[in-house]
Amino acid sequence: MNIKPLGDRVLVQAIELEEQVKGGIIIPDSAKEKPQEAVVIAIGPGKRDEDGKIIPMEVKVGETVLTSKYGGTDIKIDDKEYKILNSSDILAIVVK
Amino acid sequence: MNIKPLGDRVLVQAIELEEQVKGGIIIPDSAKEKPQEAVVIAIGPGKRDEDGKIIPMEVKVGETVLTSKYGGTDIKIDDKEYKILNSSDILAIVVK
Amino acid sequence: MNIKPLGDRVLVQAIELEEQVKGGIIIPDSAKEKPQEAVVIAIGPGKRDEDGKIIPMEVKVGETVLTSKYGGTDIKIDDKEYKILNSSDILAIVVK
Amino acid sequence: MNIKPLGDRVLVQAIELEEQVKGGIIIPDSAKEKPQEAVVIAIGPGKRDEDGKIIPMEVKVGETVLTSKYGGTDIKIDDKEYKILNSSDILAIVVK
Amino acid sequence: MNIKPLGDRVLVQAIELEEQVKGGIIIPDSAKEKPQEAVVIAIGPGKRDEDGKIIPMEVKVGETVLTSKYGGTDIKIDDKEYKILNSSDILAIVVK
Amino acid sequence: MNIKPLGDRVLVQAIELEEQVKGGIIIPDSAKEKPQEAVVIAIGPGKRDEDGKIIPMEVKVGETVLTSKYGGTDIKIDDKEYKILNSSDILAIVVK
Amino acid sequence: MNIKPLGDRVLVQAIELEEQVKGGIIIPDSAKEKPQEAVVIAIGPGKRDEDGKIIPMEVKVGETVLTSKYGGTDIKIDDKEYKILNSSDILAIVVK
Repeated sequence: MNIKPLGDRVLVQAIELEEQVKGGIIIPDSAKEKPQEAVVIAIGPGKRDEDGKIIPMEVKVGETVLTSKYGGTDIKIDDKEYKILNSSDILAIVVK
Repeated sequence: MNIKPLGDRVLVQAIELEEQVKGGIIIPDSAKEKPQEAVVIAIGPGKRDEDGKIIPMEVKVGETVLTSKYGGTDIKIDDKEYKILNSSDILAIVVK
Repeated sequence: MNIKPLGDRVLVQAIELEEQVKGGIIIPDSAKEKPQEAVVIAIGPGKRDEDGKIIPMEVKVGETVLTSKYGGTDIKIDDKEYKILNSSDILAIVVK
Repeated sequence: MNIKPLGDRVLVQAIELEEQVKGGIIIPDSAKEKPQEAVVIAIGPGKRDEDGKIIPMEVKVGETVLTSKYGGTDIKIDDKEYKILNSSDILAIVVK
Repeated sequence: MNIKPLGDRVLVQAIELEEQVKGGIIIPDSAKEKPQEAVVIAIGPGKRDEDGKIIPMEVKVGETVLTSKYGGTDIKIDDKEYKILNSSDILAIVVK
Repeated sequence: MNIKPLGDRVLVQAIELEEQVKGGIIIPDSAKEKPQEAVVIAIGPGKRDEDGKIIPMEVKVGETVLTSKYGGTDIKIDDKEYKILNSSDILAIVVK
Repeated sequence: MNIKPLGDRVLVQAIELEEQVKGGIIIPDSAKEKPQEAVVIAIGPGKRDEDGKIIPMEVKVGETVLTSKYGGTDIKIDDKEYKILNSSDILAIVVK
């Protein structure tokens, strides 16, 4: 089974906290809005600009990203948790 | 009888929960905003861009989609329940 | 006497509930936002796009439509009840 | 003395209820948003589109219109009551 | 000393109520949003459209206008009260 | 040390009240939104229009302006108080 | 490890208060919205205008900036605190 996000949406899988610590990024508990590390599983074709042309996506499948924690929609596929996000909820790419 | 959605609206029929489980997607109870699997029954012609040209729809009749649970308008036709949604309430296409 | 809606407004007359049931569409009581079947009595010329050109209307006089129940303005002409709606409050055309 | 509305504003004079009943339109008491019949006394030159060109007005001086009751600004000139409305507060033209 | 409004702002001086009554316009006490007669003292160069071109102002210095009462910013220059308004807070020109 | 505002932001220094009275402008205590006299210390390059071209600033360094009192961000540099404002928070230029 | 901000986002590292005092800028305690000095660590490629062209960033890596205190998302990398901001949350460049 396969999920194809629409528009500029992105399907991501959160990285477990233990892995996050090893990776070097820790989200402080006192942070007002906590971001979350996640891996990009699938991406939509992109939004259309005012002339109807597709704007290319900024992230690729397999990249690790920092996402805004409170955006998106949770789903569970084959017992694993995923999130569908808008592109604007992805803050940065993490290069290791 | 036949329903023809206007603009970029989409007529969908929700997939019963039992079918959803078999399909592999489970919506966690703790999810803040639960999506719902549904089948596309009819689609509008599409929105118009700023120059009045029709932007083609991203979904086709017969496709299975993930929809935002709280959007749309419920209707009942010949004793079956349907929903009319805006395109923006459809998150992804499910390919089985 | 005659009502000519302005812009992309539409004058509709609601279809009585008894007629609605015969027609096959039942609006469930539990629906969060109930739509309503209605007949299009008169339409405006259409909205203008950014270059001032008229965008053609999607509905025609005499068509049966599903309308969002809470939009629009109620009026009574010659003892019959009508509603003036924006085009965006019309969800779909019903073809019988 | 003379009032020249600016932009796409319209100066109207409400039609008294007794006259309204004769004209055939009755606004039901139960209506959520009651419209009002009025005569167009003066109109502005029209709004400008994005290129600065004037978009022509949809109503003419002397026409009878249905207006949204709660829009606009009340003024009294020579002891008569008038209202200055935006074009968007005029729902339809009444042709008798 | 001299005030040069920026953008499409307008500097006006309210006309005292006694003068207003003589002029023929009375604002009813029951009015939901009371307009106010005022004289235009200075005008800005005008707003820019999307291509950066200046859109000419609709009012001229010395004209009497009807203004929305609750818009704008009050200032006092040499012991006289003035108001700086956006163009959109000026409803109409009063020609006597 | 030097502050270079970004976009269409403006760095201003408020004029003390005693100076303001001498200058002829008094802000009435009853004013709903009190403006404030200030001197322009530094300006940004200007906003970009939809085609990416810079729109020139309407104020120059050294000019006295009337600013909306509640906009902007307060900072203190070398023990003096300044404010960083958006251009839209500057109402008018004061020419003495 | 490396963070690449997306769109017109900027990764900054706040300057400690002791350093800020030496630098000459003090944020008054009474300030309604306190800005914060920070160093730019990484920048995104820039936003796209309506034609899909990238608008160049106004800040460069290594520059000291004044940022709006309440915007952005806090993250911790290798035990140091950073913030990911939108360009619009950066008020000015500080040149020392």
